[in-house]
Amino acid sequence: MPHYLTRRVSFAAAHRYRISEWSDEKNAQTFGLCARPNYHGHSYVCDVTVTGSLDAVTGFVADLGVLDTVLQREVRERFDHANINLDIPEFADGRLMPTGENLAQFIYERVQGALGSAIRVVRVTVAEDPTLSATYEPG
Amino acid sequence: MPHYLTRRVSFAAAHRYRISEWSDEKNAQTFGLCARPNYHGHSYVCDVTVTGSLDAVTGFVADLGVLDTVLQREVRERFDHANINLDIPEFADGRLMPTGENLAQFIYERVQGALGSAIRVVRVTVAEDPTLSATYEPG
Amino acid sequence: MPHYLTRRVSFAAAHRYRISEWSDEKNAQTFGLCARPNYHGHSYVCDVTVTGSLDAVTGFVADLGVLDTVLQREVRERFDHANINLDIPEFADGRLMPTGENLAQFIYERVQGALGSAIRVVRVTVAEDPTLSATYEPG
Amino acid sequence: MPHYLTRRVSFAAAHRYRISEWSDEKNAQTFGLCARPNYHGHSYVCDVTVTGSLDAVTGFVADLGVLDTVLQREVRERFDHANINLDIPEFADGRLMPTGENLAQFIYERVQGALGSAIRVVRVTVAEDPTLSATYEPG
Amino acid sequence: MPHYLTRRVSFAAAHRYRISEWSDEKNAQTFGLCARPNYHGHSYVCDVTVTGSLDAVTGFVADLGVLDTVLQREVRERFDHANINLDIPEFADGRLMPTGENLAQFIYERVQGALGSAIRVVRVTVAEDPTLSATYEPG
Amino acid sequence: MPHYLTRRVSFAAAHRYRISEWSDEKNAQTFGLCARPNYHGHSYVCDVTVTGSLDAVTGFVADLGVLDTVLQREVRERFDHANINLDIPEFADGRLMPTGENLAQFIYERVQGALGSAIRVVRVTVAEDPTLSATYEPG
Repeated sequence: MPHYLTRRVSFAAAHRYRISEWSDEKNAQTFGLCARPNYHGHSYVCDVTVTGSLDAVTGFVADLGVLDTVLQREVRERFDHANINLDIPEFADGRLMPTGENLAQFIYERVQGALGSAIRVVRVTVAEDPTLSATYEPG
Repeated sequence: MPHYLTRRVSFAAAHRYRISEWSDEKNAQTFGLCARPNYHGHSYVCDVTVTGSLDAVTGFVADLGVLDTVLQREVRERFDHANINLDIPEFADGRLMPTGENLAQFIYERVQGALGSAIRVVRVTVAEDPTLSATYEPG
Repeated sequence: MPHYLTRRVSFAAAHRYRISEWSDEKNAQTFGLCARPNYHGHSYVCDVTVTGSLDAVTGFVADLGVLDTVLQREVRERFDHANINLDIPEFADGRLMPTGENLAQFIYERVQGALGSAIRVVRVTVAEDPTLSATYEPG
Repeated sequence: MPHYLTRRVSFAAAHRYRISEWSDEKNAQTFGLCARPNYHGHSYVCDVTVTGSLDAVTGFVADLGVLDTVLQREVRERFDHANINLDIPEFADGRLMPTGENLAQFIYERVQGALGSAIRVVRVTVAEDPTLSATYEPG
Repeated sequence: MPHYLTRRVSFAAAHRYRISEWSDEKNAQTFGLCARPNYHGHSYVCDVTVTGSLDAVTGFVADLGVLDTVLQREVRERFDHANINLDIPEFADGRLMPTGENLAQFIYERVQGALGSAIRVVRVTVAEDPTLSATYEPG
Repeated sequence: MPHYLTRRVSFAAAHRYRISEWSDEKNAQTFGLCARPNYHGHSYVCDVTVTGSLDAVTGFVADLGVLDTVLQREVRERFDHANINLDIPEFADGRLMPTGENLAQFIYERVQGALGSAIRVVRVTVAEDPTLSATYEPG
């Protein structure tokens, strides 16, 4: 498909990287400052890229209203002003570590699942700040 | 080709999404606020990515002077301080809807056409604002 | 007051600078490309700065919920996806020219009027794009 | 003083706005989503502006090495990858609410205290994200 | 004056901070990496803020065409793709050190001198990058 | 690989494009203002994208500590506050021209070489300013 649309959605969230079975030392060694027990946070910026065939009448590859509704529910309402480790079951201790990599894949799965076959998600990028981002591109 | 060059060009333009055969209700339902009859506008940011073989002497994949001349004429002079629907014949009522998707493809075609075979355009991205952009990548 | 809070609100709008009694030549000479008759547009970014005494309990100088409600109604709903010349009576032909200077003062007056005496607006900046902005600071 | 220097320092931190004596309802009514018990976070961007007399030889109003050392110790080491409520005693429950307003004043006091009389801090701005910032300017 | 207009102009330049009578050690101690003999450079971003009485007809505080002509000549043509120490006599060895502070004041003087009494410059900010800027405000 | 991590590293450097065997006229004709003999400079922003298999325990595709150590040594220490033509042997006169294209490929080779087989670099982008960037993607 030659046409893509990228929509940005932001959220403010807390998280930490910590494996409870590990010692403080091993957590710090592996995760650095991100292992601090009391959590820290980021103003996350998430870009979701979709594709589809261009509608010759509307000039759209995707219904932006539908996409925005899904991003609001699956991303904003789930992650904004949340503690990712504590508030989102899939990222609880012992499950997914709330890294950018896992967040990008998780958001891909939730957004693609909600959109159904009408709109195809080809890329999700999650940036913690302007210096670090993770991207998930389904095969 | 492993080398790419991306040049940004900006323009301020008005547009609207509206199909004259449709009722106001259907236009609003399909295009939301973008259907408002009196036009609105954006500070568009357009990124054009080109590729080519690296010139071992100059270290360039493309002559930036040539590229800038083409972008000035094909993008800036055409779109800056224009009403896309009214001033650019290809986007007149009943023809192309001035969405990001159509703008990106149109700019690709004009820029690639003007550059000829010496420089190959591989991607054009048109952003309305930091939260929404469309990308065209020729096959 | 030593404490200030600045909130950003964005809107996409069309406008033109044109005095109907003037010739096309005089309009172009005075306003440049902004005088083009069919309008152009910008992704406006507006920063509103308020002050007040710091509430020792909440740590706020202003109720952000109240401020956001006012900005939504007075700025977003009035200007977003609008043609400033045609849709906003105060900027109709023969009245205020929709320059950044006049927009900043107008937004100051509307926002301060809606906020009442509880929150004092000290600065409104309206940027057309990253290279040009106008600021209004009441005396 | 006509000369100013502004240095940016960033930090990722978690916080919440919550008064333990208040009910959940009153906390939510006052602080909105910021009252959520499990904390959320931001990629804070802090700009510190200083002034001084211009050194005719070096062309500096302040020793940037000294300023950076102080910002590293007083801002980065204290706030980065921290939970402001839990890790910084002055923002513990019942003390300062970790709002932008209080953070800006607190950083002003710490940085000015560490710099001594050689460099005068005139403004500290703390932004949670590009849409909201607080500024403290000492009298 | 309650109305201000801020125009951004950018330039790419090389510079170094170095006093030829000083030893390498003293230069490095005072200026850090900026003392390196072979120069380094920045993509400078300069914001010039002007004020004036609001023209009731045009809605302008300043003639932007005049301002842009002056900024092109006094800032772009002088500094863009230049070595500030070697190409601009006022910043030659033994004269002004090309710090942000001195650049901001120098640009103020040149731009205000060229504008004459019709437009009053109230602030010039020169940023080396997003983390460091200097501002000059005439008394 | 579906997972990518992009890390940004910045550096301030001087450079020029100039072939000593060519006349001033031919240099200016080919390289424009970039041929000026006394060098100019940029605040370079470099984004390095890596991939790898996702570690199910840590949620990482790459050890960010390792990547940052390599970027510090191979990019920051080599290029920051340097004159690329004079200070970096590979870009000396008669060798590589310090264009964005060559810088991106050079940084790719150095960073990939230092990382070894554990982390695969898939893209390096080097931007001179927000309007121009070069990208290298190994085959």
